[in-house]
Amino acid sequence: MRYDQRYLSIPHAVRGAAERYGDEPAIIDGDYRCTFDELAHQMVEAVRATIALDVRPGDRVGLCAPNSAEWIIAALGILGAGGVLVPLNTRFKNGELSYILRKSGARALLASSFLDNDYAADLKAADPELPALNRTVSILGPRGAADLDWQEFLHGGEAVSRSQAQDSIDRLAPEDVSDVMFTSGTTGHPKGVVYTHRAMFLHCLAEATTDLFGISENDRILHIVPMFHANSWCLPYTAVMVGADQIFAGANIQPPDICRLIQSEKVTFTGAVPTVWIAIKELCEKEGYDISSLRTIAIGGSAAPRSLQQAYAKNFGVQMSHAWGMTEMTPLGTVTRLKSYMEDWSDERKYDVYSRVGYASVGVDVRIVDDAGAELPWDGESMGELQVRGPWVIASYYDNPESADRFTADGWFRTGDVATIDAEGYVQITDRTKDLIKSGGEWVSSVDVENLIMSHPKVLEAAVIAVPHPKWVERPLACVVPKPGSALEPGEILEFLRPQLARWALPDAVEIIDAVPKTSVGKFDKKVLRERYKNWTP
Amino acid sequence: MRYDQRYLSIPHAVRGAAERYGDEPAIIDGDYRCTFDELAHQMVEAVRATIALDVRPGDRVGLCAPNSAEWIIAALGILGAGGVLVPLNTRFKNGELSYILRKSGARALLASSFLDNDYAADLKAADPELPALNRTVSILGPRGAADLDWQEFLHGGEAVSRSQAQDSIDRLAPEDVSDVMFTSGTTGHPKGVVYTHRAMFLHCLAEATTDLFGISENDRILHIVPMFHANSWCLPYTAVMVGADQIFAGANIQPPDICRLIQSEKVTFTGAVPTVWIAIKELCEKEGYDISSLRTIAIGGSAAPRSLQQAYAKNFGVQMSHAWGMTEMTPLGTVTRLKSYMEDWSDERKYDVYSRVGYASVGVDVRIVDDAGAELPWDGESMGELQVRGPWVIASYYDNPESADRFTADGWFRTGDVATIDAEGYVQITDRTKDLIKSGGEWVSSVDVENLIMSHPKVLEAAVIAVPHPKWVERPLACVVPKPGSALEPGEILEFLRPQLARWALPDAVEIIDAVPKTSVGKFDKKVLRERYKNWTP
Repeated sequence: MRYDQRYLSIPHAVRGAAERYGDEPAIIDGDYRCTFDELAHQMVEAVRATIALDVRPGDRVGLCAPNSAEWIIAALGILGAGGVLVPLNTRFKNGELSYILRKSGARALLASSFLDNDYAADLKAADPELPALNRTVSILGPRGAADLDWQEFLHGGEAVSRSQAQDSIDRLAPEDVSDVMFTSGTTGHPKGVVYTHRAMFLHCLAEATTDLFGISENDRILHIVPMFHANSWCLPYTAVMVGADQIFAGANIQPPDICRLIQSEKVTFTGAVPTVWIAIKELCEKEGYDISSLRTIAIGGSAAPRSLQQAYAKNFGVQMSHAWGMTEMTPLGTVTRLKSYMEDWSDERKYDVYSRVGYASVGVDVRIVDDAGAELPWDGESMGELQVRGPWVIASYYDNPESADRFTADGWFRTGDVATIDAEGYVQITDRTKDLIKSGGEWVSSVDVENLIMSHPKVLEAAVIAVPHPKWVERPLACVVPKPGSALEPGEILEFLRPQLARWALPDAVEIIDAVPKTSVGKFDKKVLRERYKNWTP
Repeated sequence: MRYDQRYLSIPHAVRGAAERYGDEPAIIDGDYRCTFDELAHQMVEAVRATIALDVRPGDRVGLCAPNSAEWIIAALGILGAGGVLVPLNTRFKNGELSYILRKSGARALLASSFLDNDYAADLKAADPELPALNRTVSILGPRGAADLDWQEFLHGGEAVSRSQAQDSIDRLAPEDVSDVMFTSGTTGHPKGVVYTHRAMFLHCLAEATTDLFGISENDRILHIVPMFHANSWCLPYTAVMVGADQIFAGANIQPPDICRLIQSEKVTFTGAVPTVWIAIKELCEKEGYDISSLRTIAIGGSAAPRSLQQAYAKNFGVQMSHAWGMTEMTPLGTVTRLKSYMEDWSDERKYDVYSRVGYASVGVDVRIVDDAGAELPWDGESMGELQVRGPWVIASYYDNPESADRFTADGWFRTGDVATIDAEGYVQITDRTKDLIKSGGEWVSSVDVENLIMSHPKVLEAAVIAVPHPKWVERPLACVVPKPGSALEPGEILEFLRPQLARWALPDAVEIIDAVPKTSVGKFDKKVLRERYKNWTP
């Protein structure tokens, strides 16, 4: 054996962080605070509890909860037990949740949502379809319909020795699957993205390099993005690896909470979609919050306007920085950072750079290709599909052979994003996958909504497009063709969709049209509709 | 396949760096300068030339040259061709060189030393013993006794296509051996340390994290340590991975050259043993060199005196930072860095921290154990052998079964260093295990006694060794070199030490000698002294 590759896992890294930074704060969640020594202890307790749930190495375990200390402790417990973590979106509708639990064959489910009667009812209803699901734990609040509450779960771990739990952590192999994260794709059901311990470790190590996020022991990270959203850029794991503090603030953290926490906890690093930062800027100006502890703000989801970036730099001394990634990339792909020779450039030129999503992470290769698969030049003008590869870019989906076309014959992942790359390597996403609508940082699959609408008995065909929106950037608009002879009212469609869709995915309005424009090969030609409704207002 | 693990190699990373930082400077060596685009091109040319030498994947290739652009280009060429790089110490004696070429079965040798007639004569004499050695290249200066000079070597690569060279780089597998580096042990023959592409990539990624060396695109690294010495902390590879500039300055770079280069090239990062920095401090004070571009100075080899560290911080605004590692660790193990909560500490307390060699690198586990193998507490006082493990710590030596005792049954590498670890995780190296003197059940640190002796105004250097003793098993003997022109009596040293040392640590005698024998890398070679005094009696 040339090298011992066992120790490439996040749970092992937590132990190292505790040895280096034992007395330093690790987790802050409201009144709850713990040090790295305490976190390492909590992790072992959660590993014991997970093993006691009868989770065997390789068994999938769902985790459905808002950002919280319990989320990261439960996640480390599942990973350390050799289980496969399946993070679940708390805003998934019942059908989606059941689909993922069934698809992943989850053996246990840790969730906060047993508080919600609908959720519990759904799980019970879905039970016959979930033969593998053995145990349920309510990790926040009372037990509800679950088998155990959080304390009962931890208490159960007493049947498993600490040394067995520690052995389990030491036995994790780098190729072992650590996570399956389901993404709501553009078509069909969510697809499972498979992480390994090594891919996660490598990604987080790269994230801690100075030229990417440069996360260090000095950092205090506030989580605004939900954990179930690409693991919140994997920041919870990078933080526990390098000894950074992290602050959890539940679901639906609002701008005043963000301002208050940045000020009181002296947050150095956080990230969110631009709309959040518009609200925070106004609050800071009005209420005088001090957010100068921030060293950078990572912007994901959509582009921050130049004026906003300039206002943060000028008024608060904080540089915003775009980052782009995908769940399939673990997820960090690019970060916008000025190169050393740009320091003397004019503000105008610098913000031309800051308007892009950045250059590739160390370890990640990028290219753009045309429809025929030919590589395009890096001239800042040629637009093509962005393709990526690297040690933390997936090479296949979980049990999903039909998505093999997302990978090229020569081993690149097809992101589905259209981009330019300039001569200096900066990527600009020009046309997010055409059919996706991005509303307040959440993807809405137009195809999914169309398919639902077209399942209505009075509908012939339907196309859903993005229309500009001042607050949410984009909102879905449904263009619906009734079946001949049907008297269809827009309200009927909305009422039909409401129980079946997440709130943000519900179209703002339904336009009744005569026909969906088609391309020469008969595909929906949405750019004609986008053009027609570009000035649409409610 | 879950992940494509092919791209965990330094040659692949060079291509990525060229894509991100193509027009930026990569290498500076006297009048020679090249950008990352040019370096990537040079690497491919060197891969072609190496393949044309008939080097097949897995073949060992010796590289023996002072720090130079040619060194890094040749190294990348060998690695990219799938060859196994065997870096050779230019100061090796002829017998050592032949031993390593024979032991490694080197198929080709690229060396600057063909200029040296003795060297060439030695190689010729050794030839019958080197059946595998097929081709020799003189990489600096005229061809001499070699088959090819540097230009002829590159010219030969024209027989190999660029795409074949590129394929060779793309085919590197992470488990493939990249380097065998022979360490000049203080006993017996040099032992070969085996690196893999993955271990090297992981190590360099860790080295670029903010809490370790934090090497970034902004850095300009000056190499003072020779490349053949643990790959100069692997800094040449970390630099080409992250886009830092690096400055080579040949062999025997002297303090005035160092000052001049730091000032003219605005060097941000460099490292060397403390004696170099004593000379540079005097030069800067006398000649007014501006070295304020430095963000840190890494100190290896031995401890920098507190007064020196304070002078650099106060006079030049540069913080020195100890680092400890071993060739067997690729090599970085610990770096001294203050933790965030120490920022408010008094200078005195901070420099207590700066006096240590630092806390463990992310990914590296450390422990100290007693003679019976029991783990010792981290109390800053318990001394034991320092043991390490991790993904870039070797698990065996190259073809050297007799060194199996360097690894514990539970998978840790025995460093041979004796250390304490304090409650905050900071390691302090107190001695080498073989240099420790065990007198009547008490351990005496030879290094501590040597440092005390060397603080005597009449002493130039001193080495303290164990001599056999019938009652106490071992007793310390001091071998002392007086400063030129000093009349030094052994009794003066003993009187000087008596009030400062525990009774059992006081040497039994002081021998006045002309010089302390040194190894090829300039370390005290105590085995020569031990041999000389093995029958010593009072």
